[in-house]
Amino acid sequence: MTDTALPTPPDIVRAAYGELVVTDLAASREFYVDILGLTVTAEDDDTVYLRSLEEFIHHNLVLRKGPVAALAALAFRVRSRQDVDRAEAYYQALGCRTERRADGWTRGVRDAVRVTDPLGFPYEFFHEVDHVERLAWRYDLHTPGALVRLDHFNQVTPDVPEGLAYLEALGFRTTEDIRDDEGVTYAAWLRRKPTVHDTALTGGDGPRLHHIAFATHEKHNVIAICDKLGALRRSGAIERGPGRHGVSNAFYLYLRDPDGHRVEIYTQDYYTGDPDNPLVTWDVHDNQRRDWWGNAVVPSWYTDASAVLDLDGNPQPVTARTEVREMDVTVGADGFSYARVDGTERGFKVGGQL
Amino acid sequence: MTDTALPTPPDIVRAAYGELVVTDLAASREFYVDILGLTVTAEDDDTVYLRSLEEFIHHNLVLRKGPVAALAALAFRVRSRQDVDRAEAYYQALGCRTERRADGWTRGVRDAVRVTDPLGFPYEFFHEVDHVERLAWRYDLHTPGALVRLDHFNQVTPDVPEGLAYLEALGFRTTEDIRDDEGVTYAAWLRRKPTVHDTALTGGDGPRLHHIAFATHEKHNVIAICDKLGALRRSGAIERGPGRHGVSNAFYLYLRDPDGHRVEIYTQDYYTGDPDNPLVTWDVHDNQRRDWWGNAVVPSWYTDASAVLDLDGNPQPVTARTEVREMDVTVGADGFSYARVDGTERGFKVGGQL
Amino acid sequence: MTDTALPTPPDIVRAAYGELVVTDLAASREFYVDILGLTVTAEDDDTVYLRSLEEFIHHNLVLRKGPVAALAALAFRVRSRQDVDRAEAYYQALGCRTERRADGWTRGVRDAVRVTDPLGFPYEFFHEVDHVERLAWRYDLHTPGALVRLDHFNQVTPDVPEGLAYLEALGFRTTEDIRDDEGVTYAAWLRRKPTVHDTALTGGDGPRLHHIAFATHEKHNVIAICDKLGALRRSGAIERGPGRHGVSNAFYLYLRDPDGHRVEIYTQDYYTGDPDNPLVTWDVHDNQRRDWWGNAVVPSWYTDASAVLDLDGNPQPVTARTEVREMDVTVGADGFSYARVDGTERGFKVGGQL
Amino acid sequence: MTDTALPTPPDIVRAAYGELVVTDLAASREFYVDILGLTVTAEDDDTVYLRSLEEFIHHNLVLRKGPVAALAALAFRVRSRQDVDRAEAYYQALGCRTERRADGWTRGVRDAVRVTDPLGFPYEFFHEVDHVERLAWRYDLHTPGALVRLDHFNQVTPDVPEGLAYLEALGFRTTEDIRDDEGVTYAAWLRRKPTVHDTALTGGDGPRLHHIAFATHEKHNVIAICDKLGALRRSGAIERGPGRHGVSNAFYLYLRDPDGHRVEIYTQDYYTGDPDNPLVTWDVHDNQRRDWWGNAVVPSWYTDASAVLDLDGNPQPVTARTEVREMDVTVGADGFSYARVDGTERGFKVGGQL
Repeated sequence: MTDTALPTPPDIVRAAYGELVVTDLAASREFYVDILGLTVTAEDDDTVYLRSLEEFIHHNLVLRKGPVAALAALAFRVRSRQDVDRAEAYYQALGCRTERRADGWTRGVRDAVRVTDPLGFPYEFFHEVDHVERLAWRYDLHTPGALVRLDHFNQVTPDVPEGLAYLEALGFRTTEDIRDDEGVTYAAWLRRKPTVHDTALTGGDGPRLHHIAFATHEKHNVIAICDKLGALRRSGAIERGPGRHGVSNAFYLYLRDPDGHRVEIYTQDYYTGDPDNPLVTWDVHDNQRRDWWGNAVVPSWYTDASAVLDLDGNPQPVTARTEVREMDVTVGADGFSYARVDGTERGFKVGGQL
Repeated sequence: MTDTALPTPPDIVRAAYGELVVTDLAASREFYVDILGLTVTAEDDDTVYLRSLEEFIHHNLVLRKGPVAALAALAFRVRSRQDVDRAEAYYQALGCRTERRADGWTRGVRDAVRVTDPLGFPYEFFHEVDHVERLAWRYDLHTPGALVRLDHFNQVTPDVPEGLAYLEALGFRTTEDIRDDEGVTYAAWLRRKPTVHDTALTGGDGPRLHHIAFATHEKHNVIAICDKLGALRRSGAIERGPGRHGVSNAFYLYLRDPDGHRVEIYTQDYYTGDPDNPLVTWDVHDNQRRDWWGNAVVPSWYTDASAVLDLDGNPQPVTARTEVREMDVTVGADGFSYARVDGTERGFKVGGQL
Repeated sequence: MTDTALPTPPDIVRAAYGELVVTDLAASREFYVDILGLTVTAEDDDTVYLRSLEEFIHHNLVLRKGPVAALAALAFRVRSRQDVDRAEAYYQALGCRTERRADGWTRGVRDAVRVTDPLGFPYEFFHEVDHVERLAWRYDLHTPGALVRLDHFNQVTPDVPEGLAYLEALGFRTTEDIRDDEGVTYAAWLRRKPTVHDTALTGGDGPRLHHIAFATHEKHNVIAICDKLGALRRSGAIERGPGRHGVSNAFYLYLRDPDGHRVEIYTQDYYTGDPDNPLVTWDVHDNQRRDWWGNAVVPSWYTDASAVLDLDGNPQPVTARTEVREMDVTVGADGFSYARVDGTERGFKVGGQL
Repeated sequence: MTDTALPTPPDIVRAAYGELVVTDLAASREFYVDILGLTVTAEDDDTVYLRSLEEFIHHNLVLRKGPVAALAALAFRVRSRQDVDRAEAYYQALGCRTERRADGWTRGVRDAVRVTDPLGFPYEFFHEVDHVERLAWRYDLHTPGALVRLDHFNQVTPDVPEGLAYLEALGFRTTEDIRDDEGVTYAAWLRRKPTVHDTALTGGDGPRLHHIAFATHEKHNVIAICDKLGALRRSGAIERGPGRHGVSNAFYLYLRDPDGHRVEIYTQDYYTGDPDNPLVTWDVHDNQRRDWWGNAVVPSWYTDASAVLDLDGNPQPVTARTEVREMDVTVGADGFSYARVDGTERGFKVGGQL
């Protein structure tokens, strides 16, 4: 990855949209539109194009009907048309399969290249895109749980350091990570725009999609989504949270959509745009790293993730993580997290065990 | 309890203060003052008198140093001096032990009677009390997690219907309860002031104190307390939540103080003051009853509670609940809560189990 | 008013609903339903019955089509059926006109009496009322500016002390007032339920209705209403605020409906239910009394108010206030408010004058 | 400015800190530290170095004691050491006075160049700076009005188009502006980091500093500052707001410090980092442009601003704006803002005039 012979990477601006294959388009539309309040930019029988309230490009999320629930693409916006060329050349130099479509891969997006990246993920790079109304000032359309931006992606990959090397060479900067004293890296967060991340790498069997995250403005917006799910007797969609992350310092909530795709609602991380922004490293045994309040991470959050597709639409094979898993060292009898109660390390937070 | 020959009960205005025996007064003072931000009205070597920001009476919480952590009293304010007489006469007619102190049981409170009530709890009734500055407008003293009122008590008692009959005869009105189809009542909420409760009865081995609750104005105030505990590496004090209650519709958080006494932070229940305020009954199998988002109730929340003292300061013996326990019918292999996911009842919320 | 020969007054529970005559029912419905989000319990060609989200009685606001915008009634709920009798007898003893309707004055309300009270206001007293669904848990129906309760009324009357004597004899308690050193009372707040008020008296030409107030849970709910009005290019409906009251300590916003009726959005005053709740008196020259931040009170807020009807539906004649007016002593060249800047009294807050 | 012969401009990362000369250092420290809660990184007899809670560089604000209240510098962080060289060369090519200090102009900052820019403002460019603890996770130190970032500067200059040309050549991008149909530009907002601005140009007599702005996370944080000022009887420091901006869509508050320097508290504008981020142009006659709710802009907000110093510490002479002024076309008899009430344009928002 550090081969200086690689061509100049594309100048990535930000995480722009995800394309999810869903098995029941009506159910997914209900979830993302009627419940979460995303705005429909366009739709047809097979596809729904959605955006958040402060977005001015055509979409942040594409729901496409298909036989198997999976991630079809994680799309990044690049700074110029030439950066699409650079992306194509870069991945070809990496030996990756690429497919350029001058008319775009999704409606509203123009010239774009999709690649199967070295980690097995379907990345897209595009610049040209249709502009639509930014609904920031349209408070008549806002809901109590108003989603205002796509914030980031989170990808499951077996070898986090390998993934880090690849993404840093591509131009990402690492803002935070989780490690242990033996040199294992469990997860890392990387950014282009000056937030904590545009994407993150979570160690596990991969390639799989861990989640796509949308931002709200205030914490009560996140709570409002939970309250609404309760009112609709859909609280089963709440997988974890709401809570305060240690990593990123953001307030969070994890939901599972009707296909099990995970969606995070996220607010209030911090500015990271300075070139010497300090890396924050968390000890995997710090039980406040993933929840600042020490609340338990539910096992499914560690184990479940969405399949990802290759450029032909076939699910990628999954490679098992060979290094120790975060869940194994933090949950259960053989590992432990330390909860500092009166200076005494304890296996678990008080109260959680029978 | 329904004996019409009983004298007129006292006119109870509201839950006013709790007195807790704590084993390490400095540690408790740090918890309630430095962390939770309660205001010290007065203190001496053995006792700290605390109040919330909108209170105008001398205290809402007394911390008294003692050998064994326990509840010394739950004190209710009554409408007039004569209502203290009425309380004394009422409990004597009930055959309860009473002890009247013209100079009050705690500093700042005058003529008061304490009783060991039919459920074994130490109740106090008082009217005369010193007024202190109401700090409602003193925003220079407010913290991010500002506690503004004592809201309610919650008591553990083996036989909830028996407790309900006693408290309703005393003048309380039931606002909500949790039952099953076989006629078991697991818990009930009762009020004098027009909120959901001044006290609640939780079925379990008792008499024991389940918790004392303070109110904040907004949900972010509750979250701020969690964030601060995390910053102080005291997240182990967070037992359950934050979350949205089904019962009461309030936003909640349960903490455990250094002695294990449970404190709830609570906001935004609803007005209940009309005489025909509708009773809300929850099915014990509804997994949104105690957390509207279906998040799990940690076992310790069901099992742990504080000892209560008799009028001589000795811990009351605890009587086991003989009816089925809420935890047993909602957690674990023999019982289940229903999480409605796609119309299918499931034993647990998705994701929580390995 | 202190005549001990008066019969027992009715036991008033709370301010329950207002009936407004509006000149364009469709425009008013749009304002209260589409913009403010009140729920339609029932409606017909001439009338719309609205309630707030936590209400369980039939309505909190009745909009009735009529030729002249006016207040038709301020309705209080009383504790029992017998209290309707007591109300009727009480006002007859006061020499007021009363009209009892066994079938109620508005749909959903049963036996009720309306009176023209000594101040010239149309008061209604009722107990029996249809119950409807309390939408507290129906977060799927909540909007960003969710109105949860009717909180209070505010009435303009020339002689505030006279009005206070009448309302205190009726069973109200005064919680706050605005006075000066010369013995003038400019306004007073009175409560039955334990909030700062169920109604208030504002000194001015009267009888006129100053406003009806609805409560929200959090300050951002109030702000959301402003933001939505801006989005709809209806910001002209915002008359004053949002701001923090000195009196009541509540966060507030004043709107004007399409007929000019004033509506307050209100949140977070304090508990006042103790019998010795301290009266808070504000100096009329304290420029933080009506806005804690010292922001100016717009003149229309002082001058404008709605006509009130007699029991035949005719507008009541208005009597001019003879005592000095609050606006005259606080705004303009002849009077002043003191803004404490560096200990120096200044005529106005910095910045507001050319 | 559009001379293509100019050298490469420095790569500016963001607005980093302001240096204010204050006449009473103790009074200023009380305002910024005790009231606003900024953190003291360092201080001596003449100078206080302050930072916000999420900052990791040495300071965001320097208060320096001096004889006349003024702005000493607006400092921008640049991407690399070489960019300091580029800044020096760029301004020398512009014919501006520059002064390079290898040891920095303020404590904690290293090699830096200050310039008197073409508009007469003292700009500083630096890269090397001491890192300090980022207090983002230190919730034990946060206050209800927690300021988390320096957000932007706002400068008063007579000729806005001239200033725009200069700043765009320097690498800034315009995000929003206020114009009229006759081609007058009244104000413009420009950014480097992807928020609405790092600085703005306000048309008026200049060079003068309009304000420095700090960001909070939520709207209630802004309100908490107002409430605290009220409690301290310092409400006179509140000049305008709180309110919602039209421009930027942010929630705002303007304060005046003890010397009259204006400080904005600001939250929740939107992401602007895409290269084709749409410019938002507001009509100067749109009365929601500066306050989305149509609330009046107080005259002092238009007229008052701080003197700025040259590199010798002498106040810069002020040049009068020759084009029409925003206040003149929007306030008073000769101009008007349109408030859309029922489709009718009105001179002012309802209620504001006697």
